[in-house]
Amino acid sequence: MKIAIIGGTGPQGQGLALRFARAGIAVALGSRDGARSAGIAADLMAKLPEGTAQIEGLDNEAATKAADEMVVLAVPFSAHNATLEALKPHLAGKILVDIVVPLKEGDPKKVEMPPEGSATEAAQALLGDGIPVIGALHNVSATTLNNLDWPINCDILICGDSLPARKKVIELVRVLDVEAYNAGDAEAARCIEAITPILIRQNISKAVPFTHAGIRICPPAH
Amino acid sequence: MKIAIIGGTGPQGQGLALRFARAGIAVALGSRDGARSAGIAADLMAKLPEGTAQIEGLDNEAATKAADEMVVLAVPFSAHNATLEALKPHLAGKILVDIVVPLKEGDPKKVEMPPEGSATEAAQALLGDGIPVIGALHNVSATTLNNLDWPINCDILICGDSLPARKKVIELVRVLDVEAYNAGDAEAARCIEAITPILIRQNISKAVPFTHAGIRICPPAH
Repeated sequence: MKIAIIGGTGPQGQGLALRFARAGIAVALGSRDGARSAGIAADLMAKLPEGTAQIEGLDNEAATKAADEMVVLAVPFSAHNATLEALKPHLAGKILVDIVVPLKEGDPKKVEMPPEGSATEAAQALLGDGIPVIGALHNVSATTLNNLDWPINCDILICGDSLPARKKVIELVRVLDVEAYNAGDAEAARCIEAITPILIRQNISKAVPFTHAGIRICPPAH
Repeated sequence: MKIAIIGGTGPQGQGLALRFARAGIAVALGSRDGARSAGIAADLMAKLPEGTAQIEGLDNEAATKAADEMVVLAVPFSAHNATLEALKPHLAGKILVDIVVPLKEGDPKKVEMPPEGSATEAAQALLGDGIPVIGALHNVSATTLNNLDWPINCDILICGDSLPARKKVIELVRVLDVEAYNAGDAEAARCIEAITPILIRQNISKAVPFTHAGIRICPPAH
C-alpha cells in the first residue's frame, strides 16, 4: 500500500511519513519542488530502522499519481484551494484525506473558516461529489509525530460525507496505534478543525503544565 | 455562594444541582413552574448526605434573582432565546453560564447552529456587552452527573469574551473535581458545543464499546 502526502515536507507531513513508513505503508512525499522532497525523503529514511516501507520524494503531481488510493493533503491553509485545483485531474478514483486546519493569520489560537464552513467542506465543494474528501489527523502534534519514541497522545476524529471512505481512513489511521472515531459527515469538520487552536492555546498557556496537548474520547471512569 | 440553574429540572440541570450542592455551593433550581422545581429540589436533597449545601426550587425569575453572581442556563435550545429575553432584566451584574447545545431537531448526532454561530454567541448578542456570557459544561453526560458515585470522565472547556468571567467560571467548575481549560473567546463555542453530538454519535454507535463518552485534553504520553 502506498499513500501520498502532499505538502509533505512540512513538520506535520514529515512526521506522518515517518509514522506511516514505520507501520509498513509506503509514502510518496509530495512537494512543489520534487528535488527538495527527494532530499527530505532520504533524510527521513535515515531515521527509520531497516526494513520499513519506503518514503520517496516527488513533486505533488507525481506523488498524487503514485498513491494507490489515499492522498493526504498537508499544506498550509493558504495553499489549500490552489493545491487542490492543480491536483484535481489526478485525484479521480482516489480519496482525499484533508488534515488542513484554517488557523487564523497571525493568531494560531483561532480558526478563520472558509465560507464553506471548514477546510474539509471547501475541499469537497472544490473537488465535486466524485472524489470523496475525509477530514482527519487535524489535532495531532507535529512534535509528537516526529519523536518516534513518543506514543501518540490523542484519538483521531474522522469525518466526511462518504461513509465507505470514512471507514477506509479509520483503518488507515489505526496502523499508527491510535484510536480513530467516526465523527460523522463533513460538517463535523467545523468542530474538529477548530479543536486544534484550542489545543495550541493550552500549549502556549502558562496555566497549563504541559505542551503538545492532545484530545481523547474517554469512557466512563467507574 | 449560591448559583442559579435555569431549566434546572431537566436531567443536566438536576445532575449539576446534585454535584454543586455536594461540593458546598447552594443552588436555586429554576423552572417555569416554581412548584414543580420545589418538588424536584426536595427529591434531590433526599439523595444527598446531611450537611451539603441547599438546593431550593423556584421559578426561573426568582432563581435568577437568588443567585449571587452566576446563573447557569440549562434549557433545551428551543427555549434558549425566549428564556434569556425574559430573564435579561434580572441578569445585570451577573454572569450567564450557557451550557446549551443546539442539537439538530430530530438528529442529536448533529448541531444546527443559530445565525450568531453558537448558542453562547447568540446569548451574548441578546444580552448585550454588559452581561458576560460564558460557555461551559456542554460535553458532560447527564447520566454521569446524576450517578454521584461516578467520577466525571471529561474535562470542561470554558469560553467567552470576558476573560475575568471565564476565570470565575473555571474556578466554579473545578469544585466538581474536574479539570477546566480556558478555550478562548465566545467564538470557540462553535467548536465546543459541536463536540457534544460527536460524543452522542459514539454513545449510539455499536462500533464503540462504551456509552457516556467524555472528552479530555491529554498531556504527551512519554
